[in-house]
Amino acid sequence: MMSSEPIAQLAPGALRALCRAGEYRSPTAGACLGYTQANLVMLPKAYAYDFLLFCQRNPKPCPLLEVTDAGDPCPARFAPGSDLRKDTPRYRVFSNGQLQGEKDDICELWSDDMVSFLLGCSFTFESALLAAGIAVRHLEQGTNVPMYETQVPCAPAGVFRGNLVVSMRPVPAQQVPAAVLVTGRYPRVHGAPVHVGDPARIGIEHIDRPDFGEAVAIQAGELPVFWACGVTPQVALANAAPELAITHAPGYMFVTDVPDTDIAG
Amino acid sequence: MMSSEPIAQLAPGALRALCRAGEYRSPTAGACLGYTQANLVMLPKAYAYDFLLFCQRNPKPCPLLEVTDAGDPCPARFAPGSDLRKDTPRYRVFSNGQLQGEKDDICELWSDDMVSFLLGCSFTFESALLAAGIAVRHLEQGTNVPMYETQVPCAPAGVFRGNLVVSMRPVPAQQVPAAVLVTGRYPRVHGAPVHVGDPARIGIEHIDRPDFGEAVAIQAGELPVFWACGVTPQVALANAAPELAITHAPGYMFVTDVPDTDIAG
Repeated sequence: MMSSEPIAQLAPGALRALCRAGEYRSPTAGACLGYTQANLVMLPKAYAYDFLLFCQRNPKPCPLLEVTDAGDPCPARFAPGSDLRKDTPRYRVFSNGQLQGEKDDICELWSDDMVSFLLGCSFTFESALLAAGIAVRHLEQGTNVPMYETQVPCAPAGVFRGNLVVSMRPVPAQQVPAAVLVTGRYPRVHGAPVHVGDPARIGIEHIDRPDFGEAVAIQAGELPVFWACGVTPQVALANAAPELAITHAPGYMFVTDVPDTDIAG
Repeated sequence: MMSSEPIAQLAPGALRALCRAGEYRSPTAGACLGYTQANLVMLPKAYAYDFLLFCQRNPKPCPLLEVTDAGDPCPARFAPGSDLRKDTPRYRVFSNGQLQGEKDDICELWSDDMVSFLLGCSFTFESALLAAGIAVRHLEQGTNVPMYETQVPCAPAGVFRGNLVVSMRPVPAQQVPAAVLVTGRYPRVHGAPVHVGDPARIGIEHIDRPDFGEAVAIQAGELPVFWACGVTPQVALANAAPELAITHAPGYMFVTDVPDTDIAG
């Protein structure tokens, strides 16, 4: 990264320009503070209707921010002038549901047939939790949030189906109501929790062995609180196994020009 | 109507059964109080992606409640066991964007290629306004709400495009904040207003000559308050002119099993 400016203070357009120039290839947690970061999914048009319907039927794990026209690499509402093929720090490429590898830009895979979906990301509501005085354990630890595949089925849509994936944050019992209310204000980034307490009730057997991310300790007086997670559509994508799918690499999000405060419900 | 029970007290399933039996062919305002009523749009599958995307891009005028699979006449979430081909009291049939006529059921037009969309209806938030002590003029008058085509363009999606249509309710100035907050709790039925005050600012020249519905008086001390309106997708449908489109007849809504309180944001 060439800029000497701290990434927290960078404007989203400046960060995207660094990505485009190949000068920023790091995770985006803490970058461009106050601006909405997004999950990215790119699919051939033939899969776009089923995926859009899957998102419509499962808005908590799949909160759609913007859908581009086929072949248009610019999300004009969330990041005018941007190019989704180059402006994300790292991409993952899937073929028939299998990870083929990671790339810095995906121009060579792009065609007029590709549709891009931007989905809300929990970074937005974690900022809101912190602002409300609710500590976020995995941020304190400097690790990735623990995520679990539940036994709660999503509503299927065409070829897309799978169980709900949740992220977990331990919250002191007396702060649980505040955590619900604060995140409930952000329905476009997963919203209020889907479950509080006993992990077994949603089919999680081993809270200390997350399916994705890293475990965090649940201390005395805390309850595990579970939010719908943006990894859910990735599980549905793996099940659908389209011939081509492109996503951001986990933690390497697309940073938009829209302030977090603008997407509160 | 054969039942002697007042329609306000009927269960949604009972009202739908009367529709199906051909014994209820009236507007649904005031029916099954407390249950969500819905706008209905049915389209051939070839148009479903563009229409779904139009709704995603314009959620205030087009708040999607449920989308059925092609050929499935039952919205399993909002009205399990129902049949969208028969359980609405009156339908409108459009060919190439032109109204062909009204029907009591549309079974003969149905095919495995048809997709149904249920969209939120302002009846839900009008109940909430009344409960908050905010009078609703057109209900007092016993007329249809005044609606206006604005000069505010919707975000287009494929063949669907058009200007935003708004409904207007005069609200005493001191109650405007409450009206905003109360309806803002219902994002799935148009949510908070899109405009307060001067109609010319959104391209409405003659407040006394609505494009749809009937005029209401704005009294001294009141401001006109404008909400995104479910007629918007009908204008977009007319512009897209698909070979076949079926909707409910205005005011003759599909009544769901979901309580209004369940769709608050």
